[in-house]
Amino acid sequence: MSKLTLALCQTAVTADKEKNILNAEDDIAKAARMGADLAVLPEMFNCPYENSWFLKFAEPEGGSTYTRLSKLARKSGIILVGGSIPEVDDEGKIYNTSYSFNPRGELIGKHRKAHLFDIDIKGGQKFRESDTLSPGEKVTVIDTEFGKIGVAICFDIRFPELFRAMTLAGARLIIVPAAFNMTTGPAHWELTFRMRAVDNQVFMAGAAPARDESASYISYGNSIITNPWGEVISRLGPEEGILFQEINLEEVEEIREQLPLISSLKRELYPLPEDIFKSPGKVRPGLRTFRRI
Amino acid sequence: MSKLTLALCQTAVTADKEKNILNAEDDIAKAARMGADLAVLPEMFNCPYENSWFLKFAEPEGGSTYTRLSKLARKSGIILVGGSIPEVDDEGKIYNTSYSFNPRGELIGKHRKAHLFDIDIKGGQKFRESDTLSPGEKVTVIDTEFGKIGVAICFDIRFPELFRAMTLAGARLIIVPAAFNMTTGPAHWELTFRMRAVDNQVFMAGAAPARDESASYISYGNSIITNPWGEVISRLGPEEGILFQEINLEEVEEIREQLPLISSLKRELYPLPEDIFKSPGKVRPGLRTFRRI
Repeated sequence: MSKLTLALCQTAVTADKEKNILNAEDDIAKAARMGADLAVLPEMFNCPYENSWFLKFAEPEGGSTYTRLSKLARKSGIILVGGSIPEVDDEGKIYNTSYSFNPRGELIGKHRKAHLFDIDIKGGQKFRESDTLSPGEKVTVIDTEFGKIGVAICFDIRFPELFRAMTLAGARLIIVPAAFNMTTGPAHWELTFRMRAVDNQVFMAGAAPARDESASYISYGNSIITNPWGEVISRLGPEEGILFQEINLEEVEEIREQLPLISSLKRELYPLPEDIFKSPGKVRPGLRTFRRI
Repeated sequence: MSKLTLALCQTAVTADKEKNILNAEDDIAKAARMGADLAVLPEMFNCPYENSWFLKFAEPEGGSTYTRLSKLARKSGIILVGGSIPEVDDEGKIYNTSYSFNPRGELIGKHRKAHLFDIDIKGGQKFRESDTLSPGEKVTVIDTEFGKIGVAICFDIRFPELFRAMTLAGARLIIVPAAFNMTTGPAHWELTFRMRAVDNQVFMAGAAPARDESASYISYGNSIITNPWGEVISRLGPEEGILFQEINLEEVEEIREQLPLISSLKRELYPLPEDIFKSPGKVRPGLRTFRRI
């Protein structure tokens, strides 16, 4: 199946965890009723974006937020990329983690934010995730009835190599729960989603929390979907809302035929994540979609 | 020295090779008189952008256009990134080649376009460089009194890996003689220059031929300079002109301190062009500027 309807849920995030989860549940139920195939929640949708709150709200894998997301995916019959929440592991380390569930409520992907957000812009945004969080160590691509879908979290989008890795692993759509701010949002949000789409000739979707001017970290909002030609096909403003958009994944192959970028990559000039060029006989099954073009 | 003045010469290109070279010579002399430290010519500045003309106008290294550029750099006392011209090698292969000269007229860099421009956009631009041209096989970074400068040609800019390679080799400014067209120009020209600048936290400069609506391939023009935060700091329209702009390369380090992207790259997640992370003791001299941040 190449046509699917996305619902990016731009929820409000408060200091009340239960309220945050109820907000998310409402939006996902609404998205499912409207016919969405895949719903996406924002980064840290159950927790204010602040180091002290990450520690307070962290849950182990299988915790209450996880369980409610799984049930919600099953009940709604929807693929759910569950934004991200603070996760605590057995050793007490905290991660910024995204869980994805299929329409049966089964976990199909877990991404821990791999690039931590440490920033100190003169006269602008400051933040140090590494004060509390540990980084993930994996590239994440989930298998769905619509093919492979990449998942990364916010600051991860700053690194083109990660997006190339997901693309060469077969992703035709890459989903990024994210919370850019009022410094980096106006400067780089749209630019980055458009360019990762252009370079990889994939659809890109970013789901952000709604803007709350009273928060210590102010989310830019502007949840966004770009097509493989790099056009913004759909976008919210700063307020709560659901970005509801049908996309056709076959556009990926169409664009790659007209402008052959992926097949023009030159492994002899620079290293690439997957050795798909040297040993065509050894291509992993997941790469076949990619090699067709 | 961290401050330098760039002059991007957006020259008109005709079917008269001598006239094209005279245009270029005029602009470079003018740029030097105005105080430019480094002048840049457009892609295929001496030859119409058409496969049949590439064959007609091709010259070996050291040919007449090469010699005139070398003399001009010496006479003007300027660093010259000589756009590109069709080059023929001993075996009769043709390349899209950029020669760079120091203010003594010595060759300091030769880049052969590594990614050939084969495109067939529905209802838009069609072109197949690979009908006549052979690809280069090298990443090019030149040494100057202003430090290392990367050079790539037009379609090369489509490949983020090449720009990462130049960045990790120490380039703080990357120069791209280019001729986008009326399909890809409006869609991707500014976006791509801005994003390569943002990802690599370098200055980017693109020099294009002036637009000629009567040509078979119509150049977009719009020669452009972007800073390491991804802002367009200077840009021409479609007509002939010189984009004259002072830049301060120290902005590279300033931006990298505020938003640490280069030092946050994760070799354990994806391969990178230079192994600068594992063996700090073995860093090549050219990488020291980079490692300071």
